[in-house]
Amino acid sequence: MLIDMDDRETNVMMKELGEMEIMCYPKRLKTGDYVWKDVCIERKTMDDFCASMIDGRLRSQVERMKKEFKYNYVLVSGKISGRKGDMNENCVIGMLVSLVVKYNIKILILEDDRQLAYAIKRILERHEKMYDLEEMKGGEVNGK
Amino acid sequence: MLIDMDDRETNVMMKELGEMEIMCYPKRLKTGDYVWKDVCIERKTMDDFCASMIDGRLRSQVERMKKEFKYNYVLVSGKISGRKGDMNENCVIGMLVSLVVKYNIKILILEDDRQLAYAIKRILERHEKMYDLEEMKGGEVNGK
Repeated sequence: MLIDMDDRETNVMMKELGEMEIMCYPKRLKTGDYVWKDVCIERKTMDDFCASMIDGRLRSQVERMKKEFKYNYVLVSGKISGRKGDMNENCVIGMLVSLVVKYNIKILILEDDRQLAYAIKRILERHEKMYDLEEMKGGEVNGK
Repeated sequence: MLIDMDDRETNVMMKELGEMEIMCYPKRLKTGDYVWKDVCIERKTMDDFCASMIDGRLRSQVERMKKEFKYNYVLVSGKISGRKGDMNENCVIGMLVSLVVKYNIKILILEDDRQLAYAIKRILERHEKMYDLEEMKGGEVNGK
């Protein structure tokens, strides 16, 4: 499976994904970090997540994702209690809930890059399967 | 705010929620652990989550939630890497992804009951706000 990856993403993630047979084509992406067809995945460490909450980047990123893609995911690696900075724990949880309820974004909080890479792989495989099924249905309809 | 809570839920959660001004009315719930109007929340520890994956309970619970409620959440407390039993880490991640992508269930993985109680509070407050807005809109339409 070949996907687009933002060229500012780490080589570690590219390697992890490569070992799982997800090949990343690095290019500058305007929105998200990993893109395949109408699926967009934003990857964040817990510290990035908190920092982008504070400077307002998170909200604008998420709004762009919603506008441009059909299926949107935010995958966060790290622990809420392990965050740096002095952001209140309740604020982090409040923001997670806000993304999920208000923006209807799907979030998974994972522990490290390996778990996160595996989650990306499974998300993309699920969508590939759904896409193939839709294509097959389309074919049937056209064949009738 | 007064919500229904399954009477098999722990007193710890009831107390945590009570301190956050979410009053729980314990009764036997067929589906979910916390219910308010069309919002259903299932709470699981990471070990429950894994055990209910193995015995197939998780899938049937989720299917019932989808059938009976409009807004569904699964909140898991604990670490994937801290799970007991010999379930493979990738299986747990695969199941989380399956719930999110295939079943369109919203999941949050949190660290402990306090974080989880706060997430419940914020989810319910968001829905209460959305509900009030809808009511207001309905009122306007009827008033015209």
